[in-house]
Amino acid sequence: MKKIILLGATGSIGTQCVDVVSHHADAFEIVALSAGHNIEALKEILNQVHVSDVCVIEEADAKALQSEYPDITFHHGDAGILELIDLHADVVVNALVGFAGLAPSLKTIESHKVLALANKETLVVGGDLVLEKLKEYKGTMYPIDSEHSAIFQALQGNQKEAVENLVVTASGGSFRDKTRDELKDVTVAQALHHPNWNMGARITIDSATMMNKGFEVIEAHYLFGVDYAHIQVLMNKESIIHSMVQYVDHSFMAQLGTADMRLPIQYALTYPERLPLYDATPLDLASIGTLHFQNVDFERYPLLKLAYEAGQRAGNSGAILNGADEAAIDLFLQEKISFLQIEEMIQGAYESIAYVAHPTYEDLKETDRLARAYVYQKVL
Amino acid sequence: MKKIILLGATGSIGTQCVDVVSHHADAFEIVALSAGHNIEALKEILNQVHVSDVCVIEEADAKALQSEYPDITFHHGDAGILELIDLHADVVVNALVGFAGLAPSLKTIESHKVLALANKETLVVGGDLVLEKLKEYKGTMYPIDSEHSAIFQALQGNQKEAVENLVVTASGGSFRDKTRDELKDVTVAQALHHPNWNMGARITIDSATMMNKGFEVIEAHYLFGVDYAHIQVLMNKESIIHSMVQYVDHSFMAQLGTADMRLPIQYALTYPERLPLYDATPLDLASIGTLHFQNVDFERYPLLKLAYEAGQRAGNSGAILNGADEAAIDLFLQEKISFLQIEEMIQGAYESIAYVAHPTYEDLKETDRLARAYVYQKVL
Repeated sequence: MKKIILLGATGSIGTQCVDVVSHHADAFEIVALSAGHNIEALKEILNQVHVSDVCVIEEADAKALQSEYPDITFHHGDAGILELIDLHADVVVNALVGFAGLAPSLKTIESHKVLALANKETLVVGGDLVLEKLKEYKGTMYPIDSEHSAIFQALQGNQKEAVENLVVTASGGSFRDKTRDELKDVTVAQALHHPNWNMGARITIDSATMMNKGFEVIEAHYLFGVDYAHIQVLMNKESIIHSMVQYVDHSFMAQLGTADMRLPIQYALTYPERLPLYDATPLDLASIGTLHFQNVDFERYPLLKLAYEAGQRAGNSGAILNGADEAAIDLFLQEKISFLQIEEMIQGAYESIAYVAHPTYEDLKETDRLARAYVYQKVL
Repeated sequence: MKKIILLGATGSIGTQCVDVVSHHADAFEIVALSAGHNIEALKEILNQVHVSDVCVIEEADAKALQSEYPDITFHHGDAGILELIDLHADVVVNALVGFAGLAPSLKTIESHKVLALANKETLVVGGDLVLEKLKEYKGTMYPIDSEHSAIFQALQGNQKEAVENLVVTASGGSFRDKTRDELKDVTVAQALHHPNWNMGARITIDSATMMNKGFEVIEAHYLFGVDYAHIQVLMNKESIIHSMVQYVDHSFMAQLGTADMRLPIQYALTYPERLPLYDATPLDLASIGTLHFQNVDFERYPLLKLAYEAGQRAGNSGAILNGADEAAIDLFLQEKISFLQIEEMIQGAYESIAYVAHPTYEDLKETDRLARAYVYQKVL
């Protein structure tokens, strides 16, 4: 029985993780979980999952819930999440969103638990810190992201030295058929309509700008220890090939499937074994008929190009991109800036904010603050 | 240094095996090889590869070669091939064509050498005998066939119990765009023009009838221990996805690449490691642009359907199909029967020749003789 601490239980990954665990009650048990402000969704989960501890953001919510669920210990705030990680468990599924996911990831490694990582920012912002921690504590980290899970699966049974390239596939996002000129007037509603996936707002916009794909390139670098020169992005608009590994003998190993995030979640929990995935729609390539591939155009997607640059520069570069991106998307969703201004803001922040080669956690936090401030100031 | 005995050195797989070994002289060494009647091609190989022993079919050829190459020991005939296998080596690459490959495969297992298998008939005809031998001698067998190598690669790092289906891909062969009605008048020259691969005559015709794909299904059954109900055939006309494994969690692992048989040959030799493949053309999915998939039509390809039936019936069924197929293709290449008569002959042989549930090697040999005789009699 694997004991799981689930951070970010009410989000898209979190609820799917609850679903996966509920269908393998003989193999997994969620012992503690965290949620944000969506208390109704949290209650729904608590009515079906028996946990000892829960963390929410607001102290007031924690108090209200405590009287409703007297058998559960409630925690709150960032400190509360770290308290959860101290509990007895095997795996922490980190499905938090944003910079806030970094500290819990580091704490997970320090507390000798397996880190099943859905929080991109952990590696985009703090990749170097995470690698140091993993080395120091001989820690283990598995990806929960369809692309990185695909690569992780395609690496099985092979030696690291045999890897030639990682090929991260990209759908191209909601505006893939538009020219840059046509992007000038796109609306928030249009941007939120992703052709292949139903995800949260931020990641959907990040897919449209390919900032997300850029972050995935950085994640891949840290997860698999491959140089940026050997990480490629390939467009597969059907999102059926979830990513590939090219080996030195020119064999390409690919992982394919339908768009179901429960698979990478479950694989991170069952690895190196597999269990049946309940009520899944199996891939039917014959009925899909065709898969399309094209090279990615870095002029069309300047944020992808910038992510490669930032990844190579390392230091606090990922923190700049991520902080600026979160703020710019917030402003775009509020309709205070246009779609193309997202790119301008992030590029501007990258050029303006001081580079720090070997940032501490506090340095990264400060970079994050500066990047957000840079963006928000622009619309004041 | 892995010592290799190469059977069938002058054929398509044989010469590519020589090429692979020549580029990894620090890892592999061919110590002995066999050839058929193509003595000129054999001499070319002998001038670049230093071996201790060689086997040819004809005693006269052996004698002539002996005086030309006094440092090499020459053998001849079927017995000569078995003498080669007695030599000191690690791996036998069995790239023989036809029923003649079975006895050397069995002998390889008995002599505690790894069997790197390109000879389909070993498993199509004698699959049950081979499995018994492997069990008795705790033997090891690796596939050299692009589809089976793809499946073998896609199985790495996974447990057998996690396999849901094997998906063998098929190009559809040289007549894939023709209806059955249009097949009535096709010529030998047309049949020999395979859209994706440049292979020997027999396998090219077998691709057009999909008898080859049927044999591959039977091979897959024996290589990977998967029931026929869980082996599927999927058309991918570009032959880029070389085959796939579907797991219980609905993850599909696929191996992709260009059409280069040196890859599966080399993987069988380097497994579980990989080495660079010299002068290979890497797959460029973006320039290929589109991959097409469709279900296979069993009415269009009745020999594929028959292979599933024969595989499930087992016993001497594979020997009937293979013997009849070899004879029918011989007659087709001589323009004595039409393309569609290949199917009729094989179906006829399958229905006419007595079923033997647990055949010995001698029974299989007799079935092979009967199947050929059945076909040749039809045109007398």
